[in-house]
Amino acid sequence: MSNQSSNQQLNRLPKTSPRGSPKVVIVGAGFAGVAAAKALAHSGVKVILIDRNNYHTFIPMLYQVATAVIDPQQVGYPVRRLFRHLPAVQFLHTAVERVDFNNRLVYTLEGMAVNYDYLVLATGSRSNDLGVPGTPEHTLPLGSLTEATAIRNHVLSCCEQAVKTPDVDQRQALLTFAIVGGGPTGVELAGALHELMQTAIRRDYPTLNWADVKILLLQAGGQLLKSYPPKLGVYTAKWLRRQGVEVCLNAQVTQVTDDAVYFQQGSGRQESRPERLPTHTVIWTAGLLAAPPESQPPLETVSRNKIEVAETLQVVGRPDVYAIGDLAQVDRVGESLTGVAQEAIQQGQAAAHNILRQMRGQPLQPFSYHDKGRLAMIGRHAGVGQVNGRALQGFLPWFLWLAVHLWYLPGLRNRLAVLFNWLKCYFLGEGTTRLILSPPSPNRSIQTASKAAKSRSLI
Amino acid sequence: MSNQSSNQQLNRLPKTSPRGSPKVVIVGAGFAGVAAAKALAHSGVKVILIDRNNYHTFIPMLYQVATAVIDPQQVGYPVRRLFRHLPAVQFLHTAVERVDFNNRLVYTLEGMAVNYDYLVLATGSRSNDLGVPGTPEHTLPLGSLTEATAIRNHVLSCCEQAVKTPDVDQRQALLTFAIVGGGPTGVELAGALHELMQTAIRRDYPTLNWADVKILLLQAGGQLLKSYPPKLGVYTAKWLRRQGVEVCLNAQVTQVTDDAVYFQQGSGRQESRPERLPTHTVIWTAGLLAAPPESQPPLETVSRNKIEVAETLQVVGRPDVYAIGDLAQVDRVGESLTGVAQEAIQQGQAAAHNILRQMRGQPLQPFSYHDKGRLAMIGRHAGVGQVNGRALQGFLPWFLWLAVHLWYLPGLRNRLAVLFNWLKCYFLGEGTTRLILSPPSPNRSIQTASKAAKSRSLI
Repeated sequence: MSNQSSNQQLNRLPKTSPRGSPKVVIVGAGFAGVAAAKALAHSGVKVILIDRNNYHTFIPMLYQVATAVIDPQQVGYPVRRLFRHLPAVQFLHTAVERVDFNNRLVYTLEGMAVNYDYLVLATGSRSNDLGVPGTPEHTLPLGSLTEATAIRNHVLSCCEQAVKTPDVDQRQALLTFAIVGGGPTGVELAGALHELMQTAIRRDYPTLNWADVKILLLQAGGQLLKSYPPKLGVYTAKWLRRQGVEVCLNAQVTQVTDDAVYFQQGSGRQESRPERLPTHTVIWTAGLLAAPPESQPPLETVSRNKIEVAETLQVVGRPDVYAIGDLAQVDRVGESLTGVAQEAIQQGQAAAHNILRQMRGQPLQPFSYHDKGRLAMIGRHAGVGQVNGRALQGFLPWFLWLAVHLWYLPGLRNRLAVLFNWLKCYFLGEGTTRLILSPPSPNRSIQTASKAAKSRSLI
Repeated sequence: MSNQSSNQQLNRLPKTSPRGSPKVVIVGAGFAGVAAAKALAHSGVKVILIDRNNYHTFIPMLYQVATAVIDPQQVGYPVRRLFRHLPAVQFLHTAVERVDFNNRLVYTLEGMAVNYDYLVLATGSRSNDLGVPGTPEHTLPLGSLTEATAIRNHVLSCCEQAVKTPDVDQRQALLTFAIVGGGPTGVELAGALHELMQTAIRRDYPTLNWADVKILLLQAGGQLLKSYPPKLGVYTAKWLRRQGVEVCLNAQVTQVTDDAVYFQQGSGRQESRPERLPTHTVIWTAGLLAAPPESQPPLETVSRNKIEVAETLQVVGRPDVYAIGDLAQVDRVGESLTGVAQEAIQQGQAAAHNILRQMRGQPLQPFSYHDKGRLAMIGRHAGVGQVNGRALQGFLPWFLWLAVHLWYLPGLRNRLAVLFNWLKCYFLGEGTTRLILSPPSPNRSIQTASKAAKSRSLI
């Protein structure tokens, strides 16, 4: 990469725009975008932060929303609240339609054009269906608050439906929950779903036959938690199996339909016919695709839709545009980035500091990731982690997970509420109230859509 | 009414069905239905409680969900939790398609037929558009948790949109909130919406011009809170006006469009042209229509779709069917029922006791309403109430409102959470986190619908 030369070129850019104080537009209020905005908030630049949600989502705890441990609003934090005392950061609640790099304009869905001197793209990722037929239509992803709530609604609805279903096969299909992907999200979800079933659901539905309930974790590779040391994957599989979760390694999902998931087991590429597992719930955590915005000229993407960036986090060939977080393909020798929150946060801070250096005409700094370790939760008193090169398993990483996530969760109120729910879950076996919240009438676009709430009668 | 003779007839009904222990089916898990189920839970009968939601809604506090004081799940309580320790009550989470009175069958949406010996209809009410053109499409009702959340989303979206709108007229229309109906719901909503605007929204949107914000309360009659003594209506109007709410009495809404509400002011029926108020938010609290289920033969309805019942709460001409709550037209000399929760609760208990008497061959008792008083909240330190015939206004009924509603709210956890939010609102001026939760992908009917979550990218 020719960073040296491109850096030279950047530094010759005008330091402020002709329109006034330099303006940085950040698209996306996830971990990366928020970190960048915070790092710029006291520097004298004007920051416009754009997101189509009015809240920042604390993604590492979404699986607990999906399993009714905590409430949706406990992992969402209004962006305006985050920046209430940082007036340099202005929030725009809108979706970006496209970016015009040549004219330095970001077009919003309403047709508004926001000009920028520096642009930070932090639009994150979305679920990757890996080309498996039926995946987009018949699986539930877990990437947003809405999706987490949808999983919760769906799982609870399946239990309600099962109570009413006399046919054994149909009932078993309703109570079979398949989770595809053996990474941290899949593992955490499998453990939490198992605990939900064994505690709260078991109490709420005393007439259900527990032999009908089945939770499967389907992992394409031969090991769970590939980003962790192998022995932790082995420990995790063993722990989950002891609880009753069916962990299927080397299980390649070949198709998903509305009433089944098909998968091939075995490490070789046998010609065997895929196994058919009847289920109405396939939760898809098998991978992510970066979600760059539309742009002119189009952004060049590399593997998994990611955007290639220089060491400085600048988009290759566009010195005034940075890409960070799940969107960015950061090539660092000897380091494997796995898309966790701390990577996004550090990239946001690094991009912000480089923008400030660029304005001051200073040489830019290459991004360097400081790995504080990683933790994953499996279940009660069981976690795994890698901290300072040491592999941890059992109680300690479980406790560390709780402490670290409570610490990083934005908002005192959310922290207290989550702590309360965790204690309730720990001692009473049930976190939050298990409401199946029907979808509100679509949040109508204010000018045109109808407010009609259909079928309003109670029953 | 020929109650004597019909009572005689009832008592000759078979006391148990040929299918086993007597079975009571209750349709609707609102205040009335839940009270009836609880009163029957220890009597040896089998109770099937049906609701299309898996939760009971604490309707008197919905307006606080709509104004972001408390969270949606704090006024919803899972029906299964309510009856966890009452195994005689079985919950069915489904919608009723129709009732076949002749064969004593309740058909659910899935085509399941539930037989009954006694049927209790408690299906409540829905918003009454009073035939005003544009009301069903362009107004927001406040009758369910979903509708309350939709109002919250809408109000917050209007503020977000206003920030982005340079045109003054458009911005003012976005920040004009019209509430139609000067009953307790309208009054409580107006007061709470005003407080939301003046505290949390004001802090979150420092760039908004506060002269643009307008809250109107449109009341068709010449007085607010018609079910209260007139001086309390006067006090309420004065209090709200002093805060800055525009209270329009004798204001007859004639039409609602997607960008305006039209109303005629004045107590006479002038030929004057209606006034046009540009707004994108018209919240409709102007009345309720009973929502009886479909049935064969059809139920005869009286005013506002209600079902005429005998003094015993039996549906006229159907001794094995009871109608209670908002659904029932109870004619009692010298008493005016206003559709509050305690009426529904007392009717539920009375219907349950009459069913038990009917089974034992005892004479039925006429329903008699014990009015414990009524309370309405206007705003900070301001409430009105009528308790033991005394009219109260100011701090005392305000405090009583809080205490009574906290006491009756189901679930210790909900009570603690609501108390926490109230204290936060009182001392810090903001209740809950103000998330605009986008509608989850429709809670798919498990067999057929698609799970595809569209537009999943962050921005």
